[in-house]
Amino acid sequence: MTKTVFYHAGCPVCVEAEQQFVTALDPQKYQVEVVHLGEQKNRLVEAEQAGVKSVPALVLDGLPFHINFGASLNDLR
Amino acid sequence: MTKTVFYHAGCPVCVEAEQQFVTALDPQKYQVEVVHLGEQKNRLVEAEQAGVKSVPALVLDGLPFHINFGASLNDLR
Repeated sequence: MTKTVFYHAGCPVCVEAEQQFVTALDPQKYQVEVVHLGEQKNRLVEAEQAGVKSVPALVLDGLPFHINFGASLNDLR
Repeated sequence: MTKTVFYHAGCPVCVEAEQQFVTALDPQKYQVEVVHLGEQKNRLVEAEQAGVKSVPALVLDGLPFHINFGASLNDLR
């Protein structure tokens, strides 16, 4: 079981991506943590260190994947 | 079982996204077709109609999700 983190900021684009992607991932292989960066600003540095530049983004096996484009991380500070 | 289409163009960004995402999706729920738009230009119109603007992109349950940014569809014509 691999831990995966989905970062979002509550915008409609993020919510749609969250619902689609989180439920589409193989539950046998991935455990998904959903982090709302607008509410959990203390997770911004960690997201940035994982290579996240905008939300929504999924960090999968240590690699950042930016899904569509909602907001840049700097807009959340 | 839902059919999902992953569009890419063979670039390194696409290949990485393909490997990660296609193998991360729940195999109980999704059957993934991988389409190389650089080689299958006859699928460009279909991709565009699904809302795809750039590759790599995944059309999941009829909705387009653009993953990172490799190339715009117009660069593939």
